[in-house]
Amino acid sequence: MNFRLYYILLLLLSYSTLVRAQIQHLEPRNWWVGMHESELQLLVHGPNIAQYEPHLSYKGVSLKKVHRTVNPNYLFIDLHLSPDAPAGTMELKFEKAGLPIITHPYDLLKRRAQSAQRVGFNSQDVMYLITPDRFANGTTANDTQPGMADTLNRAELYGRHGGDIEGIIDHLDYFSTLGITALWINPLLENDMPNSSYHGYAITDFSKTDPRFGTNADYLRLSKLAKQKGIKLIADMVANHCGLEHWWMKDLPDSNWVNYQGQPLTVTNHRRETLHDAYASDYDKTLQSDGWFVASMPDLNQRNPYLAQYLIQNAIWWVEYADLDGIRMDTYPYPSKEFMAEWSRRIMAEYPNFNIVGEEWSYNPSLVANWQRGVINRDGYRSHLKSLMDFPLNQALIEAFREEENWSQGLIKLYQIMANDYVYAQPNDLVIFLDNHDMSRIYTQLHEDVDKLKQSLTFLMTTRGIPQLYYGTEILAANPHSEEHGEIRSDMPGGWKGDSANVFDETGLSPQELDMLHFVRKLLNWRKTATAVHQGKLMHFAPQDGVYVQFRYTDKQKIMVILNKNKKEYQLDLKRFEEILPRQFKAQDVLQDRSIDISDHLTLQPGKALLLEIN
Amino acid sequence: MNFRLYYILLLLLSYSTLVRAQIQHLEPRNWWVGMHESELQLLVHGPNIAQYEPHLSYKGVSLKKVHRTVNPNYLFIDLHLSPDAPAGTMELKFEKAGLPIITHPYDLLKRRAQSAQRVGFNSQDVMYLITPDRFANGTTANDTQPGMADTLNRAELYGRHGGDIEGIIDHLDYFSTLGITALWINPLLENDMPNSSYHGYAITDFSKTDPRFGTNADYLRLSKLAKQKGIKLIADMVANHCGLEHWWMKDLPDSNWVNYQGQPLTVTNHRRETLHDAYASDYDKTLQSDGWFVASMPDLNQRNPYLAQYLIQNAIWWVEYADLDGIRMDTYPYPSKEFMAEWSRRIMAEYPNFNIVGEEWSYNPSLVANWQRGVINRDGYRSHLKSLMDFPLNQALIEAFREEENWSQGLIKLYQIMANDYVYAQPNDLVIFLDNHDMSRIYTQLHEDVDKLKQSLTFLMTTRGIPQLYYGTEILAANPHSEEHGEIRSDMPGGWKGDSANVFDETGLSPQELDMLHFVRKLLNWRKTATAVHQGKLMHFAPQDGVYVQFRYTDKQKIMVILNKNKKEYQLDLKRFEEILPRQFKAQDVLQDRSIDISDHLTLQPGKALLLEIN
Repeated sequence: MNFRLYYILLLLLSYSTLVRAQIQHLEPRNWWVGMHESELQLLVHGPNIAQYEPHLSYKGVSLKKVHRTVNPNYLFIDLHLSPDAPAGTMELKFEKAGLPIITHPYDLLKRRAQSAQRVGFNSQDVMYLITPDRFANGTTANDTQPGMADTLNRAELYGRHGGDIEGIIDHLDYFSTLGITALWINPLLENDMPNSSYHGYAITDFSKTDPRFGTNADYLRLSKLAKQKGIKLIADMVANHCGLEHWWMKDLPDSNWVNYQGQPLTVTNHRRETLHDAYASDYDKTLQSDGWFVASMPDLNQRNPYLAQYLIQNAIWWVEYADLDGIRMDTYPYPSKEFMAEWSRRIMAEYPNFNIVGEEWSYNPSLVANWQRGVINRDGYRSHLKSLMDFPLNQALIEAFREEENWSQGLIKLYQIMANDYVYAQPNDLVIFLDNHDMSRIYTQLHEDVDKLKQSLTFLMTTRGIPQLYYGTEILAANPHSEEHGEIRSDMPGGWKGDSANVFDETGLSPQELDMLHFVRKLLNWRKTATAVHQGKLMHFAPQDGVYVQFRYTDKQKIMVILNKNKKEYQLDLKRFEEILPRQFKAQDVLQDRSIDISDHLTLQPGKALLLEIN
Repeated sequence: MNFRLYYILLLLLSYSTLVRAQIQHLEPRNWWVGMHESELQLLVHGPNIAQYEPHLSYKGVSLKKVHRTVNPNYLFIDLHLSPDAPAGTMELKFEKAGLPIITHPYDLLKRRAQSAQRVGFNSQDVMYLITPDRFANGTTANDTQPGMADTLNRAELYGRHGGDIEGIIDHLDYFSTLGITALWINPLLENDMPNSSYHGYAITDFSKTDPRFGTNADYLRLSKLAKQKGIKLIADMVANHCGLEHWWMKDLPDSNWVNYQGQPLTVTNHRRETLHDAYASDYDKTLQSDGWFVASMPDLNQRNPYLAQYLIQNAIWWVEYADLDGIRMDTYPYPSKEFMAEWSRRIMAEYPNFNIVGEEWSYNPSLVANWQRGVINRDGYRSHLKSLMDFPLNQALIEAFREEENWSQGLIKLYQIMANDYVYAQPNDLVIFLDNHDMSRIYTQLHEDVDKLKQSLTFLMTTRGIPQLYYGTEILAANPHSEEHGEIRSDMPGGWKGDSANVFDETGLSPQELDMLHFVRKLLNWRKTATAVHQGKLMHFAPQDGVYVQFRYTDKQKIMVILNKNKKEYQLDLKRFEEILPRQFKAQDVLQDRSIDISDHLTLQPGKALLLEIN
């Protein structure tokens, strides 16, 4: 049922001439029986709802406490669900002497089998990042929505181009064939903002998808169909801020729901290092955590206990509702640090094998490492976050291929950043990438050098961690004109009817684009079975003469990855590797699909990576 | 007594026509009673000495074991010294049936009072680094030594210029007046090398000073006189390598005394990160630790137990003999890692309040931090080294002043490296510096900008850590022509008779040089009494508008340090600092010698640091 209609119906049912009591929002929209956490807090929003006293009578569910704030239009209701509470619909009753009773049905659903045991994305996966407005317009029916200001305008860099959930569903086979096993889609939730709403990070309702992308049901359908093809779904979440047009901004639930509430605009200093710094002033720390991200995105105050509870339950609700396989958490260091620990802890308590990756956009490995679960932080902070975006490796990888080789530049940067992995609790849980929606396309960063891109991809798909590709990299997507986000987040050719090129049926692509597409397909599909890449040990050798060699190995498989920046053919003497290589061996050249016999030397082609599976 | 004469005398006494048995080396030269460690191993070197059986009879001293190696010219004798062993001279007797007895007197001395409790250099000190050949030629009598190839040649960048211990003794008042409280002098031990011997890092005898610098007795006199003026003495030691002309290179004590012994020259890869890297190949790790530093400096194999014992005892011998206040250990990560832990542990066990600073020339703070005592290393390695050279801060400080200000450059680099101090067990124990003997002069690095140098010095002398100045910085020493080490290690004007300028009597200096000299003198002498700088807490504020503010404070003293890169006068609003500043206060402007009343704002002069002591 359409959610708005549902509320209108409810409104009509509870309408009274004596009091305009109505429930405009009640979240979470439903809950489940058999969750790990037995407490549940409902947010109820409606005019003067605080005048009412809520009641319920349902087996195994008790109402523990009712909280009221300075705003009479909100109630926060603590429920306790016993393990024996059955699935079903409870009736929430809101009563006040002399006023009509408001009755609100509330569903307690049965969980999917093995829901708590779901396995999150991990190093067996290759993650594909999609900016949904720019991937494929599956249906034009949802392109324009009555009442939503930011309308379709494909000609505009920062306009809405019409991409949607249906467009992603349409191309599940494409991902599958490409070798993708997980989708990270930029936020799909409602962004009813006047402009630039396409990116999704200015959420105006945390409980529903943006209708221009599709309905919650569409999202659920995507999840189900993807799962059938072995593709995991990772939601992009934001706990730090909401959009300025979020419904609660017109009627704030509490006196401290957002930071600098009712005060002049105060923007964050983005000095994330303050969070770990023993010398940091309160001034800087407060500005970092509490300052607004931008003027159009109010900074949520997660120290407000109702908001904290709301955000945690909202995340769990989406995992359970949409059967998610992971979360990518935006701007991880910007909310209160203690809240993020609790948020992660609670989600991982519900789903012990789940995974969450946090964004700490820092090139300092020790800052990134501080956020990973298992690291002993000097200040006593204990994180519950399993994965981090590996920005330090991203930078090193790009420098490795952009810079000329010398003692301290080029491949040595990559070697040194890998050698620094001891700072991480679990390097293999880091998400590694060449680019994302916030940075220049890797092909542009590598000055449109196809060989360098192939070498970078070969490294990315064989080193430790969970590789992530940004959509379009496989067909040399570039941003040659500018570093404007609107240009970086370019339309996927073939995603729109009438596109002159089409990546999905491989028409209209240049030979170079086709070649890269087939290269990525080969590499990713090989990776699916490369157990030494998923879980193997790593050994590497300091770069010499522009050649950097890394091994991945288990008892059963040994893989040798050779990056070669020489501009001429190079003879690699294998004596240096005798601690890990047999004296003579056969190997499968994965990228060239050929078997070769090897003894003392390997001939390396100029500027090409060599990926060998050693038999 | 001259040591060579002593040995000649010994040789005559033990001379026999039957066998040319003689003792050429016996080390340590003496020992002390009442040391923490009761075991002592003597290295005895002489033709066929292994044929002899050593004996001794001395109260409280027993001979535990005699070790022989593949080389018959060596004996290693383990002694045990009981706590009740008295000071005195023991007779070591070397006997063999049919051969005359060799008798060798061995002194067990009484320790200085409180020797074990000596307090090493610390954050109360300002350390002054001297390259002794280039500081002052106190006596020309030692300039040329019979039999030593590398003779006086002041015209040659890499020649010996004649500076000596006497020259340092001559200028103790200069240091004292300047505000220096500790001297780190580049190695003074014998470097009987054919050329470039002036730098001191190719040691050819670990038991004696180079005669061109002076005798061991001169060194001891320097120590005593310096101590009288409140100046500590820090020896520069090298355990990784010796000079190719070291006496033992002609008659190696064991089959594995040096690495790659008898093999072709194999040079280290300098990849120090391999020592912490879980992925490192044995190939790279071995090359790092065992490769020779350069062809003229054989890499010592500290896994040889006799050599390990020799090096540890040699260090303790110098501390006890020369009454040292600290050690600076060269190339700390190049010897075996386990040996360095043991070396440091043993010295610190003898002198629990002592200090040793190790050189790990890395700009990666976590690599530097891994070597500091108290850090929990992931690989289980436990270091016993209290201080490290803070190369990361050195780099950041220079970048802070060289780079134009923007979001990610300039002062923010300094702020970020400070904010990263959580990686260190004890940031206040790091030795901080603007330059040293291995890098371009700071004045040259700052493009001869006096204001920037003054700001850098103000920061260095007020932030956490133990500041170190390289001689000549106080008079704008520069290397304008090249980065040749011979140029960087320039002669101190006035150190040689006939020099046209003289820093010691302040003649012939330019007004700028005099101004800097007086600036440094004022800053350092103020620092002596600035307890908040020595031990205070630190609070800093993220740079804004080209201004970076740091506070040092205790209950009794509060210091505000303002670095200002603006090219125009700047009004600093003090509201941002209200958590640490009173609303209205008086302050002493340390650099301008004036008292000021402050309320809302501070006027900052273009490009100048402001150092305030707040009352």
